[in-house]
Amino acid sequence: MKILFLGDIVGSPGRRAVKDFLPELIKKYRPHFVIANGENAAGGYGLTEKVAEELFSYGIDLLTTGNHVWKKEFIPYLQKTEKVVRPANYGPGAPGKGWSLLTRGELKLGVLNLEGRIFMRPLENPFLVGRALAQDIAKETPFILVDFHAEATSEKLALGYFLNGLVSAVLGTHTHVQTSDERILSQGTAYITDVGMCGSLESIIGMKIHQAFELYVTMVGRKLEVESSPPYKLEGVFLELNSEGRAKNIERFRLIT
Amino acid sequence: MKILFLGDIVGSPGRRAVKDFLPELIKKYRPHFVIANGENAAGGYGLTEKVAEELFSYGIDLLTTGNHVWKKEFIPYLQKTEKVVRPANYGPGAPGKGWSLLTRGELKLGVLNLEGRIFMRPLENPFLVGRALAQDIAKETPFILVDFHAEATSEKLALGYFLNGLVSAVLGTHTHVQTSDERILSQGTAYITDVGMCGSLESIIGMKIHQAFELYVTMVGRKLEVESSPPYKLEGVFLELNSEGRAKNIERFRLIT
Amino acid sequence: MKILFLGDIVGSPGRRAVKDFLPELIKKYRPHFVIANGENAAGGYGLTEKVAEELFSYGIDLLTTGNHVWKKEFIPYLQKTEKVVRPANYGPGAPGKGWSLLTRGELKLGVLNLEGRIFMRPLENPFLVGRALAQDIAKETPFILVDFHAEATSEKLALGYFLNGLVSAVLGTHTHVQTSDERILSQGTAYITDVGMCGSLESIIGMKIHQAFELYVTMVGRKLEVESSPPYKLEGVFLELNSEGRAKNIERFRLIT
Amino acid sequence: MKILFLGDIVGSPGRRAVKDFLPELIKKYRPHFVIANGENAAGGYGLTEKVAEELFSYGIDLLTTGNHVWKKEFIPYLQKTEKVVRPANYGPGAPGKGWSLLTRGELKLGVLNLEGRIFMRPLENPFLVGRALAQDIAKETPFILVDFHAEATSEKLALGYFLNGLVSAVLGTHTHVQTSDERILSQGTAYITDVGMCGSLESIIGMKIHQAFELYVTMVGRKLEVESSPPYKLEGVFLELNSEGRAKNIERFRLIT
Ligand SMILES: [Fe+2]
Ligand SMILES: [Fe+2]
Ligand SMILES: [Fe+2]
Ligand SMILES: [Fe+2]
Ligand SMILES: [Fe+2]
Ligand SMILES: [Fe+2]
Ligand SMILES: [Fe+2]
Ligand SMILES: [Fe+2]
Repeated sequence: MKILFLGDIVGSPGRRAVKDFLPELIKKYRPHFVIANGENAAGGYGLTEKVAEELFSYGIDLLTTGNHVWKKEFIPYLQKTEKVVRPANYGPGAPGKGWSLLTRGELKLGVLNLEGRIFMRPLENPFLVGRALAQDIAKETPFILVDFHAEATSEKLALGYFLNGLVSAVLGTHTHVQTSDERILSQGTAYITDVGMCGSLESIIGMKIHQAFELYVTMVGRKLEVESSPPYKLEGVFLELNSEGRAKNIERFRLIT
Repeated sequence: MKILFLGDIVGSPGRRAVKDFLPELIKKYRPHFVIANGENAAGGYGLTEKVAEELFSYGIDLLTTGNHVWKKEFIPYLQKTEKVVRPANYGPGAPGKGWSLLTRGELKLGVLNLEGRIFMRPLENPFLVGRALAQDIAKETPFILVDFHAEATSEKLALGYFLNGLVSAVLGTHTHVQTSDERILSQGTAYITDVGMCGSLESIIGMKIHQAFELYVTMVGRKLEVESSPPYKLEGVFLELNSEGRAKNIERFRLIT
Repeated sequence: MKILFLGDIVGSPGRRAVKDFLPELIKKYRPHFVIANGENAAGGYGLTEKVAEELFSYGIDLLTTGNHVWKKEFIPYLQKTEKVVRPANYGPGAPGKGWSLLTRGELKLGVLNLEGRIFMRPLENPFLVGRALAQDIAKETPFILVDFHAEATSEKLALGYFLNGLVSAVLGTHTHVQTSDERILSQGTAYITDVGMCGSLESIIGMKIHQAFELYVTMVGRKLEVESSPPYKLEGVFLELNSEGRAKNIERFRLIT
Repeated sequence: MKILFLGDIVGSPGRRAVKDFLPELIKKYRPHFVIANGENAAGGYGLTEKVAEELFSYGIDLLTTGNHVWKKEFIPYLQKTEKVVRPANYGPGAPGKGWSLLTRGELKLGVLNLEGRIFMRPLENPFLVGRALAQDIAKETPFILVDFHAEATSEKLALGYFLNGLVSAVLGTHTHVQTSDERILSQGTAYITDVGMCGSLESIIGMKIHQAFELYVTMVGRKLEVESSPPYKLEGVFLELNSEGRAKNIERFRLIT
């Protein structure tokens, strides 16, 4: 099975990068499934139905998310769709679902979203929730992709090793900076600490540089705005899995207009 | 000099408590100055010009604030007024001012606002900024009140001792729960870790209880709404200073409708 | 049923305060059970077997703890004793137990320890774990005391309301500063945000003042040492429960040598 | 000017990687200066005089550090040496120095160490302190290397852009995972979010995997121990600067035994 996974799409420049680059990536890699993290796709914070549908129209099959998904207006859509997942380790009663099953012909891929707790919200334990759900999904298919949306490198690495052999891949998101440590762990799980982002290249994780300066100098609380100037970049990984759902290849990419 | 200081005013129930109780408190204590922390006075998050003016109309002379003051719409007013201060230890270029001088007849009171850094934003050092500004204000008047808007008890106690003898009082705000440790430190500085709040009694620091349950069970990010049901409470302290600006008395109060 | 509960005992001054004051408190209140939080009793950080035994010899029946209990040397004792509990919401496999049953004649008191997650470690959910365990303990006895060892006032208040009617009392610890908000909630649960501490009066939550100054000015990481100079204070609450395990009275105290 | 910079050296496997690989790197790159982050070189936490001297004996000219440098026993050495710097933005009175000047023949290189504040200690502002010190060092030499020891990608990127054109390079450390975003910013400053680490390959940022599992499952507080099994990796960057101190090249490397 071949999979394309794109890092956090930030605002309209991120969506534009997907629109411009995804066709050529699909031509090059011939993926069975295309997945992306969409938690910043609408104005840098969260998603809307319209933005989600726009991204699906470019060829994305499913959106994972993260801490920014809880925009009030988005929750009705999150509750009904099968095409957007939110981290599975929120507490009982949280809207939406934590994993989804994609099918294409005979192929089935389970996509599980988890969120870290170090320097983030104190959610349910992503290790325990993640292992239990991975075991559930394994009853349906051996092809399981995990988007671990987390901040701390130690927690991300630990989850990679913890699920090693249980899932096909543990792919980190949230920091918006691609790491160079992609590899296949001993039991066949592909791992990377962070796949990176899609958005404006000359930016602070997708946001306006001078606004970040102002924030870090004054520390006056404010929401940063999406940087919209080109060039745009698109970052992610390409995965190839064998028939047992173990990784044969993980390849990182970055395209810049 | 006699001073009334009220804890964080939360939303319309907090303003209502001020309206209802302040006249009798003024009658009872005959304060020269009335000060309150207004960082939650408008809908639970921040201030607006209208809300500030409303509070002044009830007899408050000056509003201190805290981490919630940075509402975009409020900044123009914050920049021009002398009657609202924001924590002084934000970085260079932050709008507004960190201290103000109140006068009544021959009496002058300096009011200095500081914000803690433990479990809060990494601001400039409140100990160093606080001491330097206290020394500046001392050139104008020996009567100096500090509102230390902070979370951690250790940081609040430490600032109290650090400014002991330099200022008339260090009064804690931000946790919205009144502590029972009011006293006069060895060099005459009145101290309390937290003066409490003004707002709905049956609430989670002024906000709706069932919404807090939802938050803490699901951990889904959301803004809590102000609880508006009575009874309302008003919490604060009364200070009496001698002619050298040292404290003779600190008295904590809580009024409930 | 009558219960004495003492706040975090800090180092040898805290133990000394217990030794000196507990007999007179017992004489005055005639409690059936005496419980104290011991997480700082050994040198300010954690417990040892020797220190625990010393505290039991003064008349304490059971020690609750908190984030500081995980001293390596203490774990063997923690695993075998019935007289020290640690927060119940650590993950599966954590040593020690989260609640214990005290008996005296026909009387049985369940003591449940929980730890907060806001500004603390991301543990299992104290609301869900707390409710489930309270329901379990309720099968044994209607007398249930909860020590909620937590930082954030909002989380503490929320747990008090959440367990209102399910337990006899929710008593906060960890901040080492006593709050003035003790009361009985609508369904008969006694509540206070923090009961305070036992240790040196002129200190930063039990530790040396000048070391805290150094820490907060330089921010150089260091462990603060226990302040050992008198006067010493002992803080806590006295509870009276009716035969259904609901609170009739909660009374806060502070004794100073 | 040619410079080698190595990421956080973790324990004896990290030192061993330096010993084994540095000679061949020196042969390959012919650097004028070799710098490494040593904050984890002694047992995973901090430095000792002996360990520092061992690292100098392998050809390292200067050690930068970070949040783990404040081991009590190390402070006397830190105070006297010119060859170890600690983050410059600790408060007044902190032991040690924040930058140092290396000379080789006519060449002078200023090395400035800063620490981030997001998810870390609330230090003095690294943007303001960093800019001021960079301007001071620029009076001595146009060759200025900054080790920004920080957690948050947004803060690291922001400092890179903030010092763009003022310094030769802003190199991130602390997360122990190498990022793939090395590049030269518009005004000639080389930048990478994190250069990575030196230590055991199959580890959680240098520490034992099964201990990290235990930590993240139970959340029981504990210090992780250094993983000492081979293979070992060594990560860092090679820089080439022009005669004005602007970057011509930044090249990332990872060597594995
Ligand atoms: Fe994101
Ligand atoms: Fe995120
Ligand atoms: Fe507030
Ligand atoms: Fe606040
Ligand atoms: Fe404590
Ligand atoms: Fe504690
Ligand atoms: Fe490190
Ligand atoms: Fe570090």
